Amino acid sequence: MRLELTRRYALAASHRLNSPHLDEAENERIYGKCNNPYGHGHNYIVEVTVSGKVDPATGMIADLGELDGYVAREIIEPFDHMYLNKDVEAFRDHVPTTENLCMEIFERLKQFPSARLVRIRLEETGRNSFEYAGQGDGDER
Amino acid sequence: MRLELTRRYALAASHRLNSPHLDEAENERIYGKCNNPYGHGHNYIVEVTVSGKVDPATGMIADLGELDGYVAREIIEPFDHMYLNKDVEAFRDHVPTTENLCMEIFERLKQFPSARLVRIRLEETGRNSFEYAGQGDGDER
Amino acid sequence: MRLELTRRYALAASHRLNSPHLDEAENERIYGKCNNPYGHGHNYIVEVTVSGKVDPATGMIADLGELDGYVAREIIEPFDHMYLNKDVEAFRDHVPTTENLCMEIFERLKQFPSARLVRIRLEETGRNSFEYAGQGDGDER
Amino acid sequence: MRLELTRRYALAASHRLNSPHLDEAENERIYGKCNNPYGHGHNYIVEVTVSGKVDPATGMIADLGELDGYVAREIIEPFDHMYLNKDVEAFRDHVPTTENLCMEIFERLKQFPSARLVRIRLEETGRNSFEYAGQGDGDER
Amino acid sequence: MRLELTRRYALAASHRLNSPHLDEAENERIYGKCNNPYGHGHNYIVEVTVSGKVDPATGMIADLGELDGYVAREIIEPFDHMYLNKDVEAFRDHVPTTENLCMEIFERLKQFPSARLVRIRLEETGRNSFEYAGQGDGDER
Amino acid sequence: MRLELTRRYALAASHRLNSPHLDEAENERIYGKCNNPYGHGHNYIVEVTVSGKVDPATGMIADLGELDGYVAREIIEPFDHMYLNKDVEAFRDHVPTTENLCMEIFERLKQFPSARLVRIRLEETGRNSFEYAGQGDGDER
Repeated sequence: MRLELTRRYALAASHRLNSPHLDEAENERIYGKCNNPYGHGHNYIVEVTVSGKVDPATGMIADLGELDGYVAREIIEPFDHMYLNKDVEAFRDHVPTTENLCMEIFERLKQFPSARLVRIRLEETGRNSFEYAGQGDGDER
Repeated sequence: MRLELTRRYALAASHRLNSPHLDEAENERIYGKCNNPYGHGHNYIVEVTVSGKVDPATGMIADLGELDGYVAREIIEPFDHMYLNKDVEAFRDHVPTTENLCMEIFERLKQFPSARLVRIRLEETGRNSFEYAGQGDGDER
Repeated sequence: MRLELTRRYALAASHRLNSPHLDEAENERIYGKCNNPYGHGHNYIVEVTVSGKVDPATGMIADLGELDGYVAREIIEPFDHMYLNKDVEAFRDHVPTTENLCMEIFERLKQFPSARLVRIRLEETGRNSFEYAGQGDGDER
Repeated sequence: MRLELTRRYALAASHRLNSPHLDEAENERIYGKCNNPYGHGHNYIVEVTVSGKVDPATGMIADLGELDGYVAREIIEPFDHMYLNKDVEAFRDHVPTTENLCMEIFERLKQFPSARLVRIRLEETGRNSFEYAGQGDGDER
Repeated sequence: MRLELTRRYALAASHRLNSPHLDEAENERIYGKCNNPYGHGHNYIVEVTVSGKVDPATGMIADLGELDGYVAREIIEPFDHMYLNKDVEAFRDHVPTTENLCMEIFERLKQFPSARLVRIRLEETGRNSFEYAGQGDGDER
Repeated sequence: MRLELTRRYALAASHRLNSPHLDEAENERIYGKCNNPYGHGHNYIVEVTVSGKVDPATGMIADLGELDGYVAREIIEPFDHMYLNKDVEAFRDHVPTTENLCMEIFERLKQFPSARLVRIRLEETGRNSFEYAGQGDGDER
């Protein structure tokens, strides 16, 4: 009776790809127009997948309101309508690629108490998406 | 040469979330407006994934017409344009959450003879979906 | 400097097509499975289009928050998660086809004070949609 | 034999809504989180509609390659992966709302030589879109 | 009480763009890879818009089953799973561009008896679509 | 720190389903209208999923430009705007079902040097898709 529930959220944010580990010429070569000085933005789509047993009394895995509140506090409030490079502590000296953003979102949600976080799928545009399922070290719920 | 084929079906149905295991106040608190007395509805999307070997003569896993007929008889006819709580035996005293509907669809399709049923993905709205892959006890095809 | 703004809302509701102007056999013949006794439902999509001049100070036609509040009060609260035939006064003795629902939504929104309502587009499923632009008698804003 | 052709383009850009005609408190009240100091971004979708007669020799209204080249030069290169407030001259002292961006795109494309520009539809998110068809003064092709 | 109803159909067909009015070099230059010798194909989406008064007894503009039957006979059967250049008489010596296909569909549906055909929108890919509303000579229903 | 990146490509191609292992009557019975003599076509969507470690210097799994170049050379150029049965060597005497096309694409991409190919998802229409993840013999990167 184990199911997965996937819930979809939207974020509008901006970022600039410029790594402190690379010099200016490398940053330009590797990131191309994503390295433009003032940044650019996306409508990110975040899909949060949790799994759990279906409670026989309620017929549900988890209370969606509780999940929404958790995601609002941990993800939407800090990231939505923000410039990731400046507004988010974690990306002050860490390049905010969609890969890194996807892992950051996973880390912020993995303690969700009412169901086990299975994976995060982060869509940057209709053409690119990323999935992260954590490091596999212990899924002991 | 094992592939998965996913085929998408649509269902328009209504339901009311009201569990016989909960009292009136709990039903209201837990289900909110999904507990409204006369129900409400959705355009459900059902994605059926089967897997199998590709037949070297036909280049196909399964005959889609056969799958469509099976799904029509087991799922579309009993559920489409129905009020799940009253028209479907299984939900007369079992709350028709999307979780429970997803498992019910899996159970009704798992004997499909021409390819192995892998999972059901059931979308309730553009924001919520559920996946169920059965109980894992034996995939011996 | 006249633009149109279209904003998209979602509604989950149920309805039964059964006209008081038709006898039982005609109701069955005309509406088919939409005449099933306990109703069925849809995820309706409502697109509200308003037009206006762009305010040179704000660069906007209308305050989206104001539009959202108006639509919430007039449309979402009375219709969302409802059984239209029983929960909505207008459909107690008036068949809630998508055509009639589309016109009802137009009538409820046409007094929106901050921009002129141009049309309502109502999607019942991915295959059917309806548009209504009122009766054309006077667009005097 | 007059048809309309609509072609869809994508733009990832960032902007900050902060009008020089409003004081700080008004900017905050009117634009809310769109007024955050470092901006945010979107995947804008630009739909360009042109109309014309179908050439009996080619069966086409316009050469799509020519339209793509024109849009690339006038819209994609100056706006894509840019921070509109700083990278685009027109928005240095003009608030880059989607309304204003939609009109700016129309003005930049209206001289397209091979078919008449009918309208621009600009989608900011899946929930908001804007359409502009110019000022109607003369469609003399 | 005049509304528009839009209904969406799908067609999988193939075509080759090669005009009898152009020589080989011009055909290659103008159509590029659409001129490849054996053709290529698309999942076309056909949106049929009709308008009419809402019948007060039924609450409907037109019987969808009747429209579906008409479109099946006039459009789906002759075009679906066909190579337009060889299987459709009209395109034996007339280049099957999406423009020409859009007008052909309009001509075949304009006599639909139960509601007035308003326009055809034909989508060739997610990036290109065409709309045709006829020649405007008489909308006398 | 292992992520999956999925990138989406589009292909317009045509095919005819007619197996050399079946006689004419069987071909007609099994493939139905997909066996029509001159073929038909689709807008195929190809989703390529690769996985890898995130490089701490760049914050990326792989260079998207490199992946795009590889896919263009191996898949888009040989398949796009082609009639698979005649233009693609592999399908001269091998029926080009979407199953077989999906495996062919996997085989052509599995040597991609900069990240491990995980799976190919190939969508033939909005209703049918196929996934292939190879034969599982050794994922030793």
